[in-house]
Amino acid sequence: MNLILIMVKMIIDRWEANIINFNAVLNSITNEQLQKEVSPGKNRGIYLLGHLIAVHDKMLRLLDFEDSQDPELHKMFIDAPDKSISEITSANDLRLLWSRQSEMLTQKISRMRPEEWFEKHTSVSSEDFIKSPHRNKLNILLTRTTHLSYHTGQMVLIK
Amino acid sequence: MNLILIMVKMIIDRWEANIINFNAVLNSITNEQLQKEVSPGKNRGIYLLGHLIAVHDKMLRLLDFEDSQDPELHKMFIDAPDKSISEITSANDLRLLWSRQSEMLTQKISRMRPEEWFEKHTSVSSEDFIKSPHRNKLNILLTRTTHLSYHTGQMVLIK
Repeated sequence: MNLILIMVKMIIDRWEANIINFNAVLNSITNEQLQKEVSPGKNRGIYLLGHLIAVHDKMLRLLDFEDSQDPELHKMFIDAPDKSISEITSANDLRLLWSRQSEMLTQKISRMRPEEWFEKHTSVSSEDFIKSPHRNKLNILLTRTTHLSYHTGQMVLIK
Repeated sequence: MNLILIMVKMIIDRWEANIINFNAVLNSITNEQLQKEVSPGKNRGIYLLGHLIAVHDKMLRLLDFEDSQDPELHKMFIDAPDKSISEITSANDLRLLWSRQSEMLTQKISRMRPEEWFEKHTSVSSEDFIKSPHRNKLNILLTRTTHLSYHTGQMVLIK
């Protein structure tokens, strides 16, 4: 196996392992528990779930997979801090969105050819990409993997 | 820049960004705060700090950098759960160990030639490595980066 294939596999494996890990946590907590803060005064579980869906929704665009599916979630779970909006999407709806989105992402990721991962992502200009070739699609997947891991470490605390 | 160099840089950049992120959190909390649990009934900050030092200490061996420096920390912060051992290393000593270790790791990482990252790490056999070439040194750095991110997400909660 050549080194490019190995490296692409390493990062996709990390993404998938972190999705599996997050799903295990999510499936082990109830909708009632999702209303709890991960620590006193901090974000609630439901906000973290919405936040991850919103960030991954933006990833669809960055990876040039498709247009953002749920732009209203960006306002609710990225622009606005937790508890600043009284009516947010329900836990059941977020669970459904999350599982649909994860499946879709898994499918799209599996269809990428290795060399496509080294293309520029959609928010970097062609000029900047020449100077910074690490600003590629694989780097988006990598940074979103550590982001997912960060919030999984928080979500697990409400168990 | 060739793709191998780009990918190695991407992962080292992620490691370094996560170390900087953790240091910012650590420097913003006091020794008294480190004695607090990240969430009621969960690990204390001081345990997480010790845990990261112990896991990164094992990484020195896995990357064939050098022998483990603090094997007694493995017992205290990996084998034993938090609050099961009454006398653990002090917060001041852990802070010192952490900063020395991070500097040393940064130095050793910067000296690696790109192709060395694709060598097998020390806990995989040569036979298994032929079948699983992704079990290389770079994958150790990658998995420890997501591990660090997971616990940084928890540590930030005691601020």
